[in-house]
Amino acid sequence: MRMTIGDFLIRRLQEIGITEVIGVPGDFNLNWLEQIEAADGIRFVGSTNELNAAYAADGYARARGVSCLLTTYGVGELSALNGLAGATCEHIPMVSIAGAPPLFATEKRWLLHHTLADGNFGNMLDSLRPFTALAERISPMNAVTEIDRALQTCLREKRPVHLQLPSDISHLSITVPDEPLDTSLEPSDPVQLEAVLDRLVQEFAAAENPVLLVDQDAQRHGFLDLFAQIVDKIQLPYAQMASGKALLSEQHPLFLGTYNGKASWPGVRERVEGSDFLLTCTPRFIEVNSGSFSHELHEENIVDFGDQHVNIYGEHIVGLDTTEVLAKLLERLPAADGAGSGTSATGESAGESAGDSTAKQPSSVNPEAVLPEPFEVRAGAELTQARLWPQVQEFIRPGDTVIAEAGTSNIGLGPQRMPENVRYINSAIWGSIGYTLPALLGSQMADADTRHLLFIGDGSFQLTAQELSTILREKQKPIIVLLNNRGYTIERYILGMDREYNDIADWAYHKLPEVFVPGTEMVSYTARTEDELADAFTAINNSDKGAFLEIHLDPEDAPAGLQAFGPMTAEFDYGPRGPRN
Amino acid sequence: MRMTIGDFLIRRLQEIGITEVIGVPGDFNLNWLEQIEAADGIRFVGSTNELNAAYAADGYARARGVSCLLTTYGVGELSALNGLAGATCEHIPMVSIAGAPPLFATEKRWLLHHTLADGNFGNMLDSLRPFTALAERISPMNAVTEIDRALQTCLREKRPVHLQLPSDISHLSITVPDEPLDTSLEPSDPVQLEAVLDRLVQEFAAAENPVLLVDQDAQRHGFLDLFAQIVDKIQLPYAQMASGKALLSEQHPLFLGTYNGKASWPGVRERVEGSDFLLTCTPRFIEVNSGSFSHELHEENIVDFGDQHVNIYGEHIVGLDTTEVLAKLLERLPAADGAGSGTSATGESAGESAGDSTAKQPSSVNPEAVLPEPFEVRAGAELTQARLWPQVQEFIRPGDTVIAEAGTSNIGLGPQRMPENVRYINSAIWGSIGYTLPALLGSQMADADTRHLLFIGDGSFQLTAQELSTILREKQKPIIVLLNNRGYTIERYILGMDREYNDIADWAYHKLPEVFVPGTEMVSYTARTEDELADAFTAINNSDKGAFLEIHLDPEDAPAGLQAFGPMTAEFDYGPRGPRN
Repeated sequence: MRMTIGDFLIRRLQEIGITEVIGVPGDFNLNWLEQIEAADGIRFVGSTNELNAAYAADGYARARGVSCLLTTYGVGELSALNGLAGATCEHIPMVSIAGAPPLFATEKRWLLHHTLADGNFGNMLDSLRPFTALAERISPMNAVTEIDRALQTCLREKRPVHLQLPSDISHLSITVPDEPLDTSLEPSDPVQLEAVLDRLVQEFAAAENPVLLVDQDAQRHGFLDLFAQIVDKIQLPYAQMASGKALLSEQHPLFLGTYNGKASWPGVRERVEGSDFLLTCTPRFIEVNSGSFSHELHEENIVDFGDQHVNIYGEHIVGLDTTEVLAKLLERLPAADGAGSGTSATGESAGESAGDSTAKQPSSVNPEAVLPEPFEVRAGAELTQARLWPQVQEFIRPGDTVIAEAGTSNIGLGPQRMPENVRYINSAIWGSIGYTLPALLGSQMADADTRHLLFIGDGSFQLTAQELSTILREKQKPIIVLLNNRGYTIERYILGMDREYNDIADWAYHKLPEVFVPGTEMVSYTARTEDELADAFTAINNSDKGAFLEIHLDPEDAPAGLQAFGPMTAEFDYGPRGPRN
Repeated sequence: MRMTIGDFLIRRLQEIGITEVIGVPGDFNLNWLEQIEAADGIRFVGSTNELNAAYAADGYARARGVSCLLTTYGVGELSALNGLAGATCEHIPMVSIAGAPPLFATEKRWLLHHTLADGNFGNMLDSLRPFTALAERISPMNAVTEIDRALQTCLREKRPVHLQLPSDISHLSITVPDEPLDTSLEPSDPVQLEAVLDRLVQEFAAAENPVLLVDQDAQRHGFLDLFAQIVDKIQLPYAQMASGKALLSEQHPLFLGTYNGKASWPGVRERVEGSDFLLTCTPRFIEVNSGSFSHELHEENIVDFGDQHVNIYGEHIVGLDTTEVLAKLLERLPAADGAGSGTSATGESAGESAGDSTAKQPSSVNPEAVLPEPFEVRAGAELTQARLWPQVQEFIRPGDTVIAEAGTSNIGLGPQRMPENVRYINSAIWGSIGYTLPALLGSQMADADTRHLLFIGDGSFQLTAQELSTILREKQKPIIVLLNNRGYTIERYILGMDREYNDIADWAYHKLPEVFVPGTEMVSYTARTEDELADAFTAINNSDKGAFLEIHLDPEDAPAGLQAFGPMTAEFDYGPRGPRN
């Protein structure tokens, strides 16, 4: 059939589940915006700038599985680059489209605005390529091939792809396939698959204290449901990395806690490092999720599951669709005694370890979780990081989406157990501050029925603050908790506790909703004490409106995790001759 | 002598005139921030995000000649990239420093936060390289060579350079030269210089109607004073490109107006295109300064001055320092009759053309300049784009710095003659919206004694709005005129006049100063009518405080220039099959 290039691109995006295109208009993309306007079931949501739009698209993809970002040439796509790089780092599928100069002018190397005015039209793609799975310019001749290849690559590799759409070709018609896009993975090589399964079943049977260690790729590659079922069937204890927080239940009796090298939850390090059969999902140990590289894992005990490989004790086996491996493994592994009872198993089987794990549940030993439950509010007591997060923990409900900005929020929430079915979003590795506010916009767009809670520090908030206006314009109703501690507290603990370079302007944050959308229904709250916070939480729970809650904290107060992390980071970063607090 | 690497870098930056480092702290640059803190005569100014910081550094460099941007690895430097690319495009010297991971971890390819966690430490430089004159990582062995090369390249090429400073080496000491950095250009080859001068003096003598056409490079390469003197001495008529607005006086009798192809000020096209001896300064004709490529210039009549070449009728002569050529040319060209009298010359000499030019002064023919002078305020009349800019023009004083955001502001101010010694800042070629607010911050930092006026539309303002907080925190006192016309009016005229994609949230902009710095001295004003605007201007002139003036305009109103530019752009961008308004 024949369609215009722009309409074909829209059709393909819809086929993979995209109903919103997030971005910023520019003269080179208005043509395609006209086609989006004319299409049913898809709409454009304008963001306030391109970096924010990229972050929003990242949040959207985390909820929906994939997203679409739209920018304009040069100024737009380069502004979005840090967001694309973050998505590449965190393994988020995103289709990034940039409206580009007309193809005739590109081929004739004309000097144009939004270029360096030197006739070079390859430099933007050159710059984006290191941070995308693919970066190409569409032409009428390659449109079907490149669009389909881009979308398949994006979904297969869980990475952003970038396409430039010249402004003069979106309304040209081309011959396109009738069939919807095939996004299935190549099935495993059957012989390879059987060999791996036989080997794994044997190894599971022989394992004395198996442990599953979950990192974010388990979610990215669609392993979570399968792992949850395997955990239950064979009573497999599991730990998580900080970069894989709450991907599996933090309430399950088989949940050990967070493994983070010597900064692990108590008891977890021994279980993980002492396992003779450790199952991992392409974990990536960086400073912040390895206790500053104090992790000690041994390849000879590890079975690692990537999306297209299984690595058994160092032997790297490819030619696999790992979801197939896990699905068949689930069938073939024998159920442990007590499986499905909702309690941990006992006996000699894998379940025995689970029994052990129950005794070692982090909730009984984690120092930040031994506070009285329910949390007892001390009227008039100023808010402190030590008591804030347990109080926050009680406010979080099963099924919430909790978004934790890098810094005190993510570090403070780390030790708090999330209720069942909480979706927890952070930028664990890339750690770009300011990410979460736009990510909140995108996540809610893709998942409108879930209550969303954002925890963000003032330093981070200032980077992308204007995206609150889009959240309000879209009539979203999140609960935004802004921690005002007058600067970059995470950095104070690394270096420069009292330095002016860690200070920021002290905004009247809670007034912003009314500035961005006068008459907005979002309600602003402030709290300085535990009872004020409790009252605000009660009011928020009794309201059906969005909330902007500014809480005040001492600039030099930090969660215990950060108090340990700061000096460790200084030690790592600045070398023996460098400065220290 | 021996110094630490960080201190040597600071010393070199101070030698080239930098007293402020603009950026955002991050753990990989806190070490160097400590060294800045300890140094005399230089300070760090924290921006709210890295793109804004890059724009601010651009504004600083336009006032000071060079600037220093500081970001952190990955998340920071990539966020700044669009700002670096803009500086590359607009030929702005900027030293961009990114704090980078410790060198030991880089060499060992450790997985770290702010990286893709894949051991690749070259990808950031790869991505930045297309948009900088040089991008390198400093090591103890290369520090002197690379720092000096970077600063010399930056100043010589008038482009940003980018250096990564690993966090563990800034406190290591190295042997450094005692002498200050030599930033002088290589002098011209003497024989080449004499030959060029002889030729030019002959050609000037033979020219019947010479015209000088100024573009931004004339300023970047330091030609303006020399050109101004040549204009006066030989009574040389001159025009400017839109991308070179107000670089030479717009009040001088020899000033012809703006050349912009068929969108030139009346009479200017004939003078420029009809000249038998057109002097140019590496003009770059893009859509917006060529009347959509309707310029018609002929190489056989053109003498072009680059910083390191003179091109005579197509013959490209290198081995020159062009400031030397111009200085000697000024000496050798014979003075015209009447030169220095302050009026235009008459007679057969070059001055004859000047005489002609007087009769064709744009002020008498430019349709946007024929309004009654002084501007007569119509009480109660709603503000319109047609009458706004002449009213604004009267508010501008000699010596002001006027910053014009891309879109209606720059297009509306284009036809208005600037008073003497106005420094006019725009992003003429790169055209990245949102640039000007942070550029205002940087320009004022570098040039605190000049009154600064910013004209910016609401759509642009939203991209970088938070930088207003830094302006206030720095206690700067600019006059910010925010044009609230509820969206991207420039785009409405290109495509989608009534489309939602060109709409934005309607902020209560004038409340922002009080949110960003409660108790700020900046005074907010609003105006919807000509008399309200006149009253606001009067109040501002009678005040010694900064002003934030929000003015309301119809979303579908536009300056005449934009009304012409919009459809021309759609024609160029979308091709014969594409959409139109």
